[in-house]
Amino acid sequence: MQLELLDKLRKENPVVLNAANFVTVQDVANGLNAIGASPIMSSEIDETDEMVNMASAVAINMGSLTKLQIAHMKKMGDLAREYHKPIVLDPVAVGAVDYRLNIAQDLLWNFHVGVIRGNAGEIAALGEFDWQSKGIDAGSGAGNLDEITKEVAKKYHCTVIASGATDTISDGTNVVHVHNGTPLFQAHVGSGDMLTSIVAAFCAVTDSRFEAAQAATLVFGSIGQLVVQDHPDVGPGSFGMYLMDYLAKVQVSDIEKIADYD
Amino acid sequence: MQLELLDKLRKENPVVLNAANFVTVQDVANGLNAIGASPIMSSEIDETDEMVNMASAVAINMGSLTKLQIAHMKKMGDLAREYHKPIVLDPVAVGAVDYRLNIAQDLLWNFHVGVIRGNAGEIAALGEFDWQSKGIDAGSGAGNLDEITKEVAKKYHCTVIASGATDTISDGTNVVHVHNGTPLFQAHVGSGDMLTSIVAAFCAVTDSRFEAAQAATLVFGSIGQLVVQDHPDVGPGSFGMYLMDYLAKVQVSDIEKIADYD
Amino acid sequence: MQLELLDKLRKENPVVLNAANFVTVQDVANGLNAIGASPIMSSEIDETDEMVNMASAVAINMGSLTKLQIAHMKKMGDLAREYHKPIVLDPVAVGAVDYRLNIAQDLLWNFHVGVIRGNAGEIAALGEFDWQSKGIDAGSGAGNLDEITKEVAKKYHCTVIASGATDTISDGTNVVHVHNGTPLFQAHVGSGDMLTSIVAAFCAVTDSRFEAAQAATLVFGSIGQLVVQDHPDVGPGSFGMYLMDYLAKVQVSDIEKIADYD
Repeated sequence: MQLELLDKLRKENPVVLNAANFVTVQDVANGLNAIGASPIMSSEIDETDEMVNMASAVAINMGSLTKLQIAHMKKMGDLAREYHKPIVLDPVAVGAVDYRLNIAQDLLWNFHVGVIRGNAGEIAALGEFDWQSKGIDAGSGAGNLDEITKEVAKKYHCTVIASGATDTISDGTNVVHVHNGTPLFQAHVGSGDMLTSIVAAFCAVTDSRFEAAQAATLVFGSIGQLVVQDHPDVGPGSFGMYLMDYLAKVQVSDIEKIADYD
Repeated sequence: MQLELLDKLRKENPVVLNAANFVTVQDVANGLNAIGASPIMSSEIDETDEMVNMASAVAINMGSLTKLQIAHMKKMGDLAREYHKPIVLDPVAVGAVDYRLNIAQDLLWNFHVGVIRGNAGEIAALGEFDWQSKGIDAGSGAGNLDEITKEVAKKYHCTVIASGATDTISDGTNVVHVHNGTPLFQAHVGSGDMLTSIVAAFCAVTDSRFEAAQAATLVFGSIGQLVVQDHPDVGPGSFGMYLMDYLAKVQVSDIEKIADYD
Repeated sequence: MQLELLDKLRKENPVVLNAANFVTVQDVANGLNAIGASPIMSSEIDETDEMVNMASAVAINMGSLTKLQIAHMKKMGDLAREYHKPIVLDPVAVGAVDYRLNIAQDLLWNFHVGVIRGNAGEIAALGEFDWQSKGIDAGSGAGNLDEITKEVAKKYHCTVIASGATDTISDGTNVVHVHNGTPLFQAHVGSGDMLTSIVAAFCAVTDSRFEAAQAATLVFGSIGQLVVQDHPDVGPGSFGMYLMDYLAKVQVSDIEKIADYD
């Protein structure tokens, strides 16, 4: 686990370009900024070339997808391949909405995607596994998440993060589990979107998507856990506030003390 | 007053679809999530059928209205009627902007609307009563709010909530007043939008729009009041944060102790 | 320094119309509301006439610019001139993105602009000075900020605010420096956008754009400084929360005690 990537990220302050979900965009920008990256959001296709060019990584979030955004996302994908910038995709609600699943699959055939991050229901849907999603929530399914995550990573030739109480991460061959976290992440809408963009920030400081995915997931999960450890009475609102504070102040040494993965 | 609907909402965790106001969408999503519902937002007309179908209620907010959204809102309305899903409308700023008033009236002739929630100026405008609104604020008027609320409910065959220091709720025949609340709601932009979507969540767990409107208004007003009771020095920022915490933790028994309505 | 404009603003509660950046719009609306103005956001060109007419000032933020917004912004500019309403422009990222720089320059030739507020890199770009911006951040440059700010003010016949550790403000002839502030502003995305809209609110209560710019900058910087003075352990999240509280509660007499400008 390359936790030192957090220090590298903070030193290099990489620009992360986001095709953002308007529901959570402020949290995502603040989360990137707090952890030490430089967020930029774009909604205009005519500035895509400059934006991808200046960015060190691209995060594409389908959370408030419109047809107009699809063309924009495809152009981001084309340019990211041309300029060798890593792409992280968040397939929000593809487990519950077939329209989004079709678009996600279409994007994934166009993209040279580095990492896909979603909840179990979203990841299962991308692999056409049987799973009952509920809106933006993971829902429940009987499948083996290790197998599902590995198969989806194989299918799309990328790293996959299935977020949950335990996060499951696979590059199609290996599977890593991160046990750090807190149920409060579920209580705060946008936690997953923040992680997606933070994964992109980690991809900006290493060539290994699999290492970036692991480190980002462990860092983010541990930071949430530390918030709750220090403030046990926290609710959805105060958790969201402290999360920003802790993204800025938690150090690698703090995370090493509680890191729990296999 | 069917306060037990709060427990039912938390048990059933209904999906609430939102045509959202981009100014307040993050608060609305977090508020729904905190109180125990499952928020989903959509900006794309091509996913409307699936979205309305999976949702238990639909909240339509005119706060950042665009022409593109109008077609989307109409389709949501048509599908909500077809799939028997309750609709709650928030006619933001129709008291101050004629353009929006015309669109709201047009939507209301198309919709099978369940509840309209606005401030006094917005509700008065829908009934073509004389009232001086100011931007997104209620402004002031000389009319009798009981009469205005009742007449607007009759006119549109629905339940109407006129929010204010006292909330006035009518189904066109009966009028209920909720006195719980706090002036801090005014200090936090998006409080009204949060209530609108929470009313939709209550509509998802009872067939009576009038009961849903009353319970949601009492619950939300009481929760705000409890925040200020416990944190008397709260300002607009800390109030917004604690509101989320309290939406998650306040119980029916806490509300019963302070409930003040007639 | 006309600090008494803060009291006038709170008394008059002016409506400020915003062409908003979707990343920071909720903070901007809450910030305006907290300090005592009445925010309204619009995304629809067909309501522009009514919106500009009812507003006392217009804030135009290029932070999430789309081609669709450009036509809207131009119409706001035309109507603001017709109705004699001050315009404040925030040229987000023009230092890093040529596409945006071209549009900003085009808008500025159309507008009767009152105040431009940006970081050093954005202001330098508008004056075609040499400067290395980084995404939405100021970056670094070798030029003399006094000269740059003064020249840009001359070029566009307006007042210019270059925000930074020290804020530099010029009307093309005079230069004022505001030293109040805190590095936490950098840690909270949207601080600059909040200031831009608050400058518009101050423009609504005086005919002097230069006085409005100075007072708004000193008030906002001092409020941030007071937050950190009272809460030295604040991080990006808690700073953002307290900032809203303090925008509502800080008085002119509090600011006078720490005001530091020349």
